[in-house]
Amino acid sequence: MGKEITSREQDYSQWYNDLVIKGSLADYSAVRGCMVIKPYGFALWENMRDVLDKMFKDTGHQNAYFPLFVPKSLFEAEEKNAEGFAKECAVVTHYRLKSDPNNKGKLIVDPEAKLEEELVVRPTSEAIIWNTYKGWIQSYRDLPILVNQWANVVRWEMRTRLFLRTAEFLWQEGHTAHATAVEAIVETKKMLEVYADFVENWMALPVIKGVKSPNERFAGAEDTYCIEALMQDGKALQAGTSHFLGQNFAKAFDVKFSDRDNKLDYVWATSWGVSTRLIGALVMAHSDDDGLILPPRIAPVQVVIVPIYKGDEQKAMIDEKVQAIVANLKALGISVKYDDSDNARPGWKFAEYELKGVPVRMAIGARDLEKNVVEIARRDTKEKMTVSMDGIESYIKELLNTIQQAMYDKAKAFREERITKTDNWDEFVQLLDTKGGFVSAHWDGTGETEDKIKELCKATIRCIPLDNPLEEGKCILTGNPSTQRVLFARAY
Amino acid sequence: MGKEITSREQDYSQWYNDLVIKGSLADYSAVRGCMVIKPYGFALWENMRDVLDKMFKDTGHQNAYFPLFVPKSLFEAEEKNAEGFAKECAVVTHYRLKSDPNNKGKLIVDPEAKLEEELVVRPTSEAIIWNTYKGWIQSYRDLPILVNQWANVVRWEMRTRLFLRTAEFLWQEGHTAHATAVEAIVETKKMLEVYADFVENWMALPVIKGVKSPNERFAGAEDTYCIEALMQDGKALQAGTSHFLGQNFAKAFDVKFSDRDNKLDYVWATSWGVSTRLIGALVMAHSDDDGLILPPRIAPVQVVIVPIYKGDEQKAMIDEKVQAIVANLKALGISVKYDDSDNARPGWKFAEYELKGVPVRMAIGARDLEKNVVEIARRDTKEKMTVSMDGIESYIKELLNTIQQAMYDKAKAFREERITKTDNWDEFVQLLDTKGGFVSAHWDGTGETEDKIKELCKATIRCIPLDNPLEEGKCILTGNPSTQRVLFARAY
Repeated sequence: MGKEITSREQDYSQWYNDLVIKGSLADYSAVRGCMVIKPYGFALWENMRDVLDKMFKDTGHQNAYFPLFVPKSLFEAEEKNAEGFAKECAVVTHYRLKSDPNNKGKLIVDPEAKLEEELVVRPTSEAIIWNTYKGWIQSYRDLPILVNQWANVVRWEMRTRLFLRTAEFLWQEGHTAHATAVEAIVETKKMLEVYADFVENWMALPVIKGVKSPNERFAGAEDTYCIEALMQDGKALQAGTSHFLGQNFAKAFDVKFSDRDNKLDYVWATSWGVSTRLIGALVMAHSDDDGLILPPRIAPVQVVIVPIYKGDEQKAMIDEKVQAIVANLKALGISVKYDDSDNARPGWKFAEYELKGVPVRMAIGARDLEKNVVEIARRDTKEKMTVSMDGIESYIKELLNTIQQAMYDKAKAFREERITKTDNWDEFVQLLDTKGGFVSAHWDGTGETEDKIKELCKATIRCIPLDNPLEEGKCILTGNPSTQRVLFARAY
Repeated sequence: MGKEITSREQDYSQWYNDLVIKGSLADYSAVRGCMVIKPYGFALWENMRDVLDKMFKDTGHQNAYFPLFVPKSLFEAEEKNAEGFAKECAVVTHYRLKSDPNNKGKLIVDPEAKLEEELVVRPTSEAIIWNTYKGWIQSYRDLPILVNQWANVVRWEMRTRLFLRTAEFLWQEGHTAHATAVEAIVETKKMLEVYADFVENWMALPVIKGVKSPNERFAGAEDTYCIEALMQDGKALQAGTSHFLGQNFAKAFDVKFSDRDNKLDYVWATSWGVSTRLIGALVMAHSDDDGLILPPRIAPVQVVIVPIYKGDEQKAMIDEKVQAIVANLKALGISVKYDDSDNARPGWKFAEYELKGVPVRMAIGARDLEKNVVEIARRDTKEKMTVSMDGIESYIKELLNTIQQAMYDKAKAFREERITKTDNWDEFVQLLDTKGGFVSAHWDGTGETEDKIKELCKATIRCIPLDNPLEEGKCILTGNPSTQRVLFARAY
């Protein structure tokens, strides 16, 4: 009965893959490193996208669409950005296939259809967008530009994992242009707050807001702000980033504006993005050995109703009752599915919806009808409750809120237990090896030390938290003087 | 004042480009044949997409996402489809760039990073999707699969035009799988009706529903159904297609299912799509020499309000009144913009919103306030009316409906006048050269005749209308016997 899921203890990595595939979120594809997002997974992404899109629009942004391809000469214009992505980009070199003269029915690349200039499939769109902004910006009156794009991007990663790291992924990338550095920094931080709001209040996942160390910055940024979440195996996951790009791209693409005093200056930039990677975070943070646990606010199906009956007469009575409940739940804006298919037993259905992480299950049998009750099961805690049908709709609405909050609280408690201070190197390594989570330790501020620590114990600086208190200390590795603790972790 | 637009009479093609670019819908990009869809154009596309998406979901479809890339071996599996698209596809051959040793700061394709198998950037997704469906379908219980994808696709067209024919474009592609041919054909026709409903009732553009001649079929289809619209220059434009694919893709990818009697058979398929090309149709069908004319039901801004005032006191009084009107309009679900920016005069704003095709403009001056009236201007007819402020919101709601209907009626009358029957070759050619539109003529049913007619006068068979009456006659070109008239036209 049901589909077999590897337990977390047995093999955490396999558990994750099982949930994604058997939970019908995604599938491997015929293309190396690329995935197929299945309807259930895509419905989840649509819910996430719609909430984020509204948040972006409420903060004054508009959507637009820029080309998939970046001509090589534009790609290389911002040197650090180019260097950062050159190693992993898909390159289009030809624009035609032709019949293989030696192999009937087969095709080969037509050598005569070689492009004069190669096209890079966008790994990120700063280059093509800033090249476009050059034509849009002359004066301070054209600023700010507050544009977002929902798109697919390609990064030819060597080791891929469904949702967490795929060669092609879906994301949004905001690209804004401003007249002053201050305004751009305000924008960068504002979008970090939007991301934190979304991940905490919709995905029920607490995050730490911070800024990256120089080593971990986005290629081409002056500062990278990030939100970091913690997974159940004690590894951190970067859930979103917002970059202050300074004037780097404006200089690379010669984008100047005349200010109120008619003085020319380069434009200030930000970019910020979250991706389908968030689905990976969601799965890893909340699920259990029986399957996914989806937060009610973004679950494609919030409530599933399963009838338990013998014979058509009982079925008809249950149907009638359920139809009224379904209509009432929908009127409350609740997404509900009545699964009265006759090709599976209730027990099989229960397991299937547990696997798929539907937050609330309602079972109704003939005897329940008599007693005017239903059986309610919470996915997150697995509690079962017998509840009166009177006012069941508002009960469920309330329960969905309760589950949303409980999931957040649980994840928060888990994370809070796993932020550990240490001033001792051996303990530092031991913490990473055993307890996991974030280790708060002093760092001497150099990239060399960061690299060395990564080499020694695979931990990276996840972030320097915003409003980090200054505190004198000694670097956990070198003993050199330090002014603050930073958060280390092993990470996805 | 305002931006200069080429008139239709002067240069129809330039008029179109002016509207698209100066009307802020799209821009050329640095990538050959690819466009940038600007925020105003993208907002229009979002409205269209959202309506279509709801229609698809209401007819039982779910969204999913499949890889951007198609490995060459899959691409070539369905021979006709491969042959149809091989000539115009972007091919990824390498996955890395590296520093150019001879040219500091420049990048070259790393010859060591050549892919073992080339990847085609999807021109359409039948191949990658049917290769995936193979893993999803075993039995009739797995059918039907009713999936849609919103995506970007690339077709390396030699001659491109903004929206109408771009190397990259945005579209949706439905891909369904069925147990019987009949069910697949029903689906094909159902989606054609959905498209016709959308284009007629939302885009205010009448279409002729029909089926393509074999020459004009989608590569790999058994039958291609289409909707054909007429542009103001008398040329036809294919606005959407729905294909009955038979078992061609199931056979190419070996997708079989066991039916209720446990007999194995190949699965039946459909695919159907509309694209950002529809925006081109919208622009060409409705606009005039002053700019775009957008149908109210999909216009990003339905009503613009422009204040006319001298001094802050008048402005404050107008603001107060407008704020109430704006709130009331929004409550009615009407998209409204209050343009009180002080960097342009009212006359400039009037011209700008005419150019952008905003259906209704409201102007309010200090004297209007005294008289409790506003000035309303319709974009489609350019009529101006002085209207009482009492009940102005319901007046506008009604007016938007009136405009939507009037735009449809006008386009319909235009098209009806331009469906002309002829049985004479010279007249046939003359009609195409002068009056344009659809020419209804007999055809002997052969591809050779079709090719010859195309060669002689650039006209193609746009479609054989659904429920076409049978009528004996002689082919317009060859004089050979014919059983029905078909619609010819020059087309985009």
